[in-house]
Amino acid sequence: MSRIMQAIVKPRAGTGLELREMPVPTIGAREVLIKTRALSICGTDLHIWHWDTWSANRLKPPLIVGHEFCGDVVEIGKDVTQVKVGDFVSAESHIIDHTCNLCRTGNGHICRNTQIIGVDRDGCFAEYIAMPAENVWQNPPEMPVEIAALMENFGNAVHTAMAMPVVARKVLVTGCGPVGLMAILVARAAGARVIYATDISAYRLNLARQIGAVAINAARENISEKIMRETDGEGIDVLLEMSGAPSAIRDGFAVLKKGGAAAMLGLPDKPFEFDFGDLVILRGITLRGIAGRKMWETWYEARGLIRSGAVDLAPIVTHKFKMSEFEKAFAVMESGESGKVVMVP
Amino acid sequence: MSRIMQAIVKPRAGTGLELREMPVPTIGAREVLIKTRALSICGTDLHIWHWDTWSANRLKPPLIVGHEFCGDVVEIGKDVTQVKVGDFVSAESHIIDHTCNLCRTGNGHICRNTQIIGVDRDGCFAEYIAMPAENVWQNPPEMPVEIAALMENFGNAVHTAMAMPVVARKVLVTGCGPVGLMAILVARAAGARVIYATDISAYRLNLARQIGAVAINAARENISEKIMRETDGEGIDVLLEMSGAPSAIRDGFAVLKKGGAAAMLGLPDKPFEFDFGDLVILRGITLRGIAGRKMWETWYEARGLIRSGAVDLAPIVTHKFKMSEFEKAFAVMESGESGKVVMVP
Amino acid sequence: MSRIMQAIVKPRAGTGLELREMPVPTIGAREVLIKTRALSICGTDLHIWHWDTWSANRLKPPLIVGHEFCGDVVEIGKDVTQVKVGDFVSAESHIIDHTCNLCRTGNGHICRNTQIIGVDRDGCFAEYIAMPAENVWQNPPEMPVEIAALMENFGNAVHTAMAMPVVARKVLVTGCGPVGLMAILVARAAGARVIYATDISAYRLNLARQIGAVAINAARENISEKIMRETDGEGIDVLLEMSGAPSAIRDGFAVLKKGGAAAMLGLPDKPFEFDFGDLVILRGITLRGIAGRKMWETWYEARGLIRSGAVDLAPIVTHKFKMSEFEKAFAVMESGESGKVVMVP
Amino acid sequence: MSRIMQAIVKPRAGTGLELREMPVPTIGAREVLIKTRALSICGTDLHIWHWDTWSANRLKPPLIVGHEFCGDVVEIGKDVTQVKVGDFVSAESHIIDHTCNLCRTGNGHICRNTQIIGVDRDGCFAEYIAMPAENVWQNPPEMPVEIAALMENFGNAVHTAMAMPVVARKVLVTGCGPVGLMAILVARAAGARVIYATDISAYRLNLARQIGAVAINAARENISEKIMRETDGEGIDVLLEMSGAPSAIRDGFAVLKKGGAAAMLGLPDKPFEFDFGDLVILRGITLRGIAGRKMWETWYEARGLIRSGAVDLAPIVTHKFKMSEFEKAFAVMESGESGKVVMVP
Repeated sequence: MSRIMQAIVKPRAGTGLELREMPVPTIGAREVLIKTRALSICGTDLHIWHWDTWSANRLKPPLIVGHEFCGDVVEIGKDVTQVKVGDFVSAESHIIDHTCNLCRTGNGHICRNTQIIGVDRDGCFAEYIAMPAENVWQNPPEMPVEIAALMENFGNAVHTAMAMPVVARKVLVTGCGPVGLMAILVARAAGARVIYATDISAYRLNLARQIGAVAINAARENISEKIMRETDGEGIDVLLEMSGAPSAIRDGFAVLKKGGAAAMLGLPDKPFEFDFGDLVILRGITLRGIAGRKMWETWYEARGLIRSGAVDLAPIVTHKFKMSEFEKAFAVMESGESGKVVMVP
Repeated sequence: MSRIMQAIVKPRAGTGLELREMPVPTIGAREVLIKTRALSICGTDLHIWHWDTWSANRLKPPLIVGHEFCGDVVEIGKDVTQVKVGDFVSAESHIIDHTCNLCRTGNGHICRNTQIIGVDRDGCFAEYIAMPAENVWQNPPEMPVEIAALMENFGNAVHTAMAMPVVARKVLVTGCGPVGLMAILVARAAGARVIYATDISAYRLNLARQIGAVAINAARENISEKIMRETDGEGIDVLLEMSGAPSAIRDGFAVLKKGGAAAMLGLPDKPFEFDFGDLVILRGITLRGIAGRKMWETWYEARGLIRSGAVDLAPIVTHKFKMSEFEKAFAVMESGESGKVVMVP
Repeated sequence: MSRIMQAIVKPRAGTGLELREMPVPTIGAREVLIKTRALSICGTDLHIWHWDTWSANRLKPPLIVGHEFCGDVVEIGKDVTQVKVGDFVSAESHIIDHTCNLCRTGNGHICRNTQIIGVDRDGCFAEYIAMPAENVWQNPPEMPVEIAALMENFGNAVHTAMAMPVVARKVLVTGCGPVGLMAILVARAAGARVIYATDISAYRLNLARQIGAVAINAARENISEKIMRETDGEGIDVLLEMSGAPSAIRDGFAVLKKGGAAAMLGLPDKPFEFDFGDLVILRGITLRGIAGRKMWETWYEARGLIRSGAVDLAPIVTHKFKMSEFEKAFAVMESGESGKVVMVP
Repeated sequence: MSRIMQAIVKPRAGTGLELREMPVPTIGAREVLIKTRALSICGTDLHIWHWDTWSANRLKPPLIVGHEFCGDVVEIGKDVTQVKVGDFVSAESHIIDHTCNLCRTGNGHICRNTQIIGVDRDGCFAEYIAMPAENVWQNPPEMPVEIAALMENFGNAVHTAMAMPVVARKVLVTGCGPVGLMAILVARAAGARVIYATDISAYRLNLARQIGAVAINAARENISEKIMRETDGEGIDVLLEMSGAPSAIRDGFAVLKKGGAAAMLGLPDKPFEFDFGDLVILRGITLRGIAGRKMWETWYEARGLIRSGAVDLAPIVTHKFKMSEFEKAFAVMESGESGKVVMVP
């Protein structure tokens, strides 16, 4: 007779999510069972709530959603050696096979056969989750649970902000959602000379300003004029594109100086017009598309930044809710008037 | 009383060029005078002939056109030490100031104040040209003149094909004009595992095939299906985009495998719709915009490839004309039924 | 009742090896059993024969030796999915745990806990060997067995020769043992402008010359004078150090031009005097220590070079013996009058 | 009739320096005359004082010494455009020709024909110095003179500390002389996780501690044991070698983890025994020899670090003297009980 737990579930195709009872998962020989302690909401979870085209094409309900969390290991499979009961852990959300050429050459994060928890198999918005032991990342016991829950998502920011050198460079972060804010923190820790940040939410721009960026409201100011003026007509060295908005992408490249570099994480929702000739080719730009996190280079870098105190993620967490209040939590995320929203099971 | 020479001139705004008499240029203290021996026509020269929007915005006629050539140094300025009368030389077409931050950090080729011969100041389609001594590149005396005339343009191909490692990689070259053909030669010399090449000209595809590429006619075959089938569904490792055609660019990225790399040299004539999310970001692609040649890293690499015999440019030169027949020469270039077209003054 | 096979064994501490009967190994759930078809002798095997200090400190006899081979998979463990019975395979000799930070960041080849077959556990000089399925590399069925047996060792050469760009560069390979010879083949395939090669064995220099190197006998010529003269006083761009001999290392660095690069694979047997100031620091040299092969980047590169035909390893294999003639095979390796020596079980 | 100025001069072969009257230099068409405002003493100047073997082989007295300074431009040559009278400037001490292949490929700092001021031609320890305009670096007028005088030497530290990524990495700086101290500041600004620093001078270790390093006295503690214990047996990621001392170099490599990276700036005074096999090759280490500064990448990076406030050089300047007290100034440098010693003309 299986045990029962509370979980946030996409019950069927269509809008919305439900809190319902689900069986506590059982684990395989190389898996561990984790009792969750904090759950963090990602923009992807909003897409799943709304059941947008991407969600409709990819998810197979019913499914427990969520992929950012931390918790305590309460059970380990018989072949698990590197994790033990009692470990306080976060987890990499991409579960990869180790047989394709991508996995075998350090590109497991973009493996063709990857499975993401909360998307392709049951996720973490629940009291318990089963994870492959190899996906588990051990945290120091004293780390606050709301920070530990952010480690996966922080990895996106670290992966992006470290894709090209920012030390002593002028950096522009387009988009001040949670990942954009975390990218500001990483760029600052890594010695950026100045960090410009754009968004259209006054709330988020205010957060950006508090953590050290020169915040510019794209709805009110001409980004290009403002930044070219601030940089004496030279433009920026590095663009970290976190918004996925075509106008922000074009503005970002327009102020990127010749020979500059751009890392793009924000996902545009569809193709858009772009002037490759003027914005990329004639300027001799280097551009990197960023997906997920390097497994596990990014995690070690993320850990180094946190443990040295160079990055403090606390100001990014603006709201906490109980898991039973998930509808309120999602509504806050939806509003744009938040940093990171964390739930406690 | 100045001496007189023959030169191909854009006499005024509008289509066409004229052969006319012009004064032989005089040289400054740090310049050299070169008697030309071979002149090579670039796609840019065709644009100038047609007086397209770019030409109309940039050129100030009257102007001697042309920027690819070789010749003999016949006079040197009083402060010139590194070049001597009798040297057989090619020349870098970008004349740079050495004061901006781009020039001072190895990016002179994209210097904001660069002057290109035949575009911003008098060019080489003439019996003589004055060049800064620092722009001159010495060739071995025995190098055939039609090869020496190609060195500048070959540099574009080298710069592009060496922007990312191709050794043991599967490479796609989109666009088999002269620079595309030269990029095929470089990729082959650098150990590419296989080189796919696309174009819509049967003539150019035939040339591509002769120099070792797997040639695919984009007008007749589905590029994506063909290449994915040939690569067992894996796609290519490196894209060298030489066409500037939106459809070729999209096809190229569509067969680029996750984690792959693209170098783009071909200049699209206007903005176009592009799916950054699927083609660049989710695939974790690295992309480099390529303009000009590195001064002078590319020239040394080009020299190494030619002198070792790894690259033989001879098959690329398909037509030769006298400078007085320039209208025929331009017509052949226009037809697409040519490799490189060279004129002799 | 276990089956019996022939194997070359280090029976106890001390010089020499024995051919004796050993039980055919049994396999675990994630392992495969391979019936060997060709076995290749490495310099390390000679050290083990002689029971040098390194061997005495590391090996725990009795032990089946050997780590380079190919064969057919004849049995697979119950959890093996990526390999099937009948596959013709080579294998990576380093068996790594996947839990340390080196393994998790693409440095498994230098994992602190690595186990090498034929050194830390039973090796391949036998009729059968058990290998973790993840260590297996599939070859095309038509590949000659003596080439397939070389793939592991070829990986050392690929790893070294690709550690820094050699295309259009002047390269020096110090040491023309089998790995040095293979490095010459890789550098040539990758577009090196010229490849100088040094050794003191006329036999090996002759092989080097046959595969395209400018061979120089260090016992008879002054390496430094010869190379500086050949390079017009400029020196070489890239040093591939394969000998481990202090004099060769010093000679190699002495002709390396300022800003040049060196990859070192050859293992000196003890510390020696080296002039860091003049040879490395003031010259602005970049130096890479090379151990093993990247898992699995190097294997994919090695495959690409072989399949394109850019590298043909056949001339490197100079001798073949039956496994029962192993004493003759080792004696030939010992003599220095050989390329690669392959045995057939 | 030429004007007269005070200058510190090496009058003839042998120990010591003299303050004497010298003619104010005249300038060429592309040079500028600078009235100095602060002069900074380098370790090289101490070697020149002592007339060590290197000095005796290289300098041709009589010669004005010194190469670190700042001052005001008081006169410009007729072809100078990028600098104007009144500019407050520092200067790159390496005067390069622009014709060799090193200069032409971004390696001018190690040009074979380089001339260093105060070594190969008259230096800056004087009231005036003539410099090529292209060697001049403009500072903001408000920069303190003792900081502006340090920019050249700070460039050594920036060049070394940025030779490999230090962000989120564990760094060891061996040698806490002024350049070592500045390297600590750069590594900290660039987000190093922790910076260990070794020396044998309690004074300098105290300075290192004040600017954020974990200081370890190599005369009293076992470096290797201490660091391996502090890093849980993992060792450090990056070694910045600033001492040139064989024991420090060996200790530094001994605690460098596999796959780690080292940048070496400190110049050993002679060859010494080094275990390449264990310390570099088997560990898969990447090593960079560092000389001078990249012209001008390093200067832009140095400027970025200063202007953002990420690096404050003020604590490094521990002593100031009048130029007429140069003997006291040199004695303090000699004592090891100092950071940077600055003189005012």
